[in-house]
Amino acid sequence: MDEFKRKDFPYSRILSSMCTTPHPLAVKAHVKFITSNLGDPALFRGAKELEDRVIEMLGSFMHNPKARGYVTSGGTEANIQALRAFRNLKKLANPNVVVPESAHFSFDKAGDILGIEIRKARLDEDYRVDLSDVERLIDEKTVGIVGIAGTTSLGQIDPIEDLSKLALEKDVFLHVDSAFGGFVIPFLYPKLKFDFRLEGVCSITIDPHKMGMATIPAGCILFRDERFLKALAVKTPYLITEEQFSLTGTRPATGVASTYAVLKYLGFEWLKKVVKRCMDVTLYLVEEMERLGFERVIDPVMNVACFKTERATEIRDELYRRGWAVSVIENPRALRFVVMPHVTFRVIDEFISTLKDVLRNI
Amino acid sequence: MDEFKRKDFPYSRILSSMCTTPHPLAVKAHVKFITSNLGDPALFRGAKELEDRVIEMLGSFMHNPKARGYVTSGGTEANIQALRAFRNLKKLANPNVVVPESAHFSFDKAGDILGIEIRKARLDEDYRVDLSDVERLIDEKTVGIVGIAGTTSLGQIDPIEDLSKLALEKDVFLHVDSAFGGFVIPFLYPKLKFDFRLEGVCSITIDPHKMGMATIPAGCILFRDERFLKALAVKTPYLITEEQFSLTGTRPATGVASTYAVLKYLGFEWLKKVVKRCMDVTLYLVEEMERLGFERVIDPVMNVACFKTERATEIRDELYRRGWAVSVIENPRALRFVVMPHVTFRVIDEFISTLKDVLRNI
Repeated sequence: MDEFKRKDFPYSRILSSMCTTPHPLAVKAHVKFITSNLGDPALFRGAKELEDRVIEMLGSFMHNPKARGYVTSGGTEANIQALRAFRNLKKLANPNVVVPESAHFSFDKAGDILGIEIRKARLDEDYRVDLSDVERLIDEKTVGIVGIAGTTSLGQIDPIEDLSKLALEKDVFLHVDSAFGGFVIPFLYPKLKFDFRLEGVCSITIDPHKMGMATIPAGCILFRDERFLKALAVKTPYLITEEQFSLTGTRPATGVASTYAVLKYLGFEWLKKVVKRCMDVTLYLVEEMERLGFERVIDPVMNVACFKTERATEIRDELYRRGWAVSVIENPRALRFVVMPHVTFRVIDEFISTLKDVLRNI
Repeated sequence: MDEFKRKDFPYSRILSSMCTTPHPLAVKAHVKFITSNLGDPALFRGAKELEDRVIEMLGSFMHNPKARGYVTSGGTEANIQALRAFRNLKKLANPNVVVPESAHFSFDKAGDILGIEIRKARLDEDYRVDLSDVERLIDEKTVGIVGIAGTTSLGQIDPIEDLSKLALEKDVFLHVDSAFGGFVIPFLYPKLKFDFRLEGVCSITIDPHKMGMATIPAGCILFRDERFLKALAVKTPYLITEEQFSLTGTRPATGVASTYAVLKYLGFEWLKKVVKRCMDVTLYLVEEMERLGFERVIDPVMNVACFKTERATEIRDELYRRGWAVSVIENPRALRFVVMPHVTFRVIDEFISTLKDVLRNI
């Protein structure tokens, strides 16, 4: 198996992923719960209790200690479940949801799966969703709108406060996808409201296996109240518990345990330090890239940075051949970096040195 | 964390789950791939290669080495994806799928999620789906039918060969849910065709984390050919690979690695021995239960056994209070046991002794 493992990129060469090396404590907790099945919570009561505590901690972190939800397989399941709850509660024929053009592709997937039309709202010049375009796209078939707090491409934050007002005014639900930003924004911009402090926000995606330093799989969906969770219920005849809300059936407790370990034993203050370090490295990367003549797409809002270049794909492919992973975005054409905790100053130095050589040779 | 772990039932007291303690080799492989993300296969090439090999091995095991598919979060995702592929290929308004009454509740969940009407066909006196009722329920909106090879309640096997003929005749797709039975039937009844040997079978659910002795999460969906997988494709703009077929985005490689370890280093012959041992214990359980006056619902087809009793819930609840997990089915009212590899002769002896005491006291 080691032979296969060596073919995986090591994280120290990955500048394009929102996952990272989990903390050793998270790994230890993961292994301890490796056999537990949260699909059968009456049998795995300890694991279930851990999940309840994780939901309470994350609900409080999102300013709603009474939030209901569960630890998902990741952000995609969380986004699907939010839209499913909206659809099931509104009960409209041919429903649609309005998302920003910058929304993660999981919304396209959710649309296909759920039979919901996904309408894409334009972005403004700062790559935040254009509120007037969201308003234009809402009609009597709209069950919800989506705001992104930390876009996949740029780490930009949509005007969630305005979206919240609009959602209340139009009587549609609002889902906030902060799969990545949920563990970043509260540390960098504690006064920025993107969560349950805003009355219109009905659900939030926040993934411990991204900036929460937990092991895969650990996403999370939080709902403002029970009503949304109930809209997902399916009867479970042969189990002791009577209903199931999760998209999956059998469900690992590993991500729950690793998340609990991080939140309880390392804590939010430690995560704040991790995020601040990531921001320092991000700014260092921006400096180094600009020294090479690249232009930033936006001032980094979080630990994601993009640099315009028409040769983005060419550069990415040559870096890939040399064992480095960066990614490419199309609008605008740019190289994209996610500066996760495994991306240290030293990794940036090594990367920049390789990049210089690549630029000389392509 | 140990305090929480102690609140989980140990597997040696669980007679109601289709999960079990994975083999130590599976755990070792799991841990080795704990950081890999199959949602980004261009970066985790070793993990992806392992998955390709697992799919090839399981495809061959199901008599179609060219089967396409992937390792899912479990049987629920596999069942959802099969129905989604059928729906997307048939492109009918208000689609329906006909499933046996004995189908797992994941089909109700899939129906809600996908907007597919789930029609339930009656069972015959042996709790196998009634073919004429399936035929009666098929109409011009039917995109597929489902057969169960190893029902959740009784471990019964539907007449898949007949369903296959019917599917071809009616021009609908056929999905076989052998989440549990896929790793049992080929060992006990090697001549019984329930897989790709039958021309009508388009997709199969077979879960390594059930009788495959792998770690959670490891389900598997296999499709007869590429066409079904393509019907699930979503574009992935910022990744190096261009499309994604899985329901989830970020996706652990742990279940893939543990499945590979089991299939490659322990092998199908070893699994066959495990299954035969489970059957021996099952027959021993039946003997012991009948000695206590319980009547079997059917002769056990696989390592699942049910015993009629009007006091099923009462008995289950008292056993639960004493730290033993069994489950209850409603049609007919019975106690249900799944005799997984962790359920040894000794476990049965201890259980029967507790059960005797329960019966004296309730």
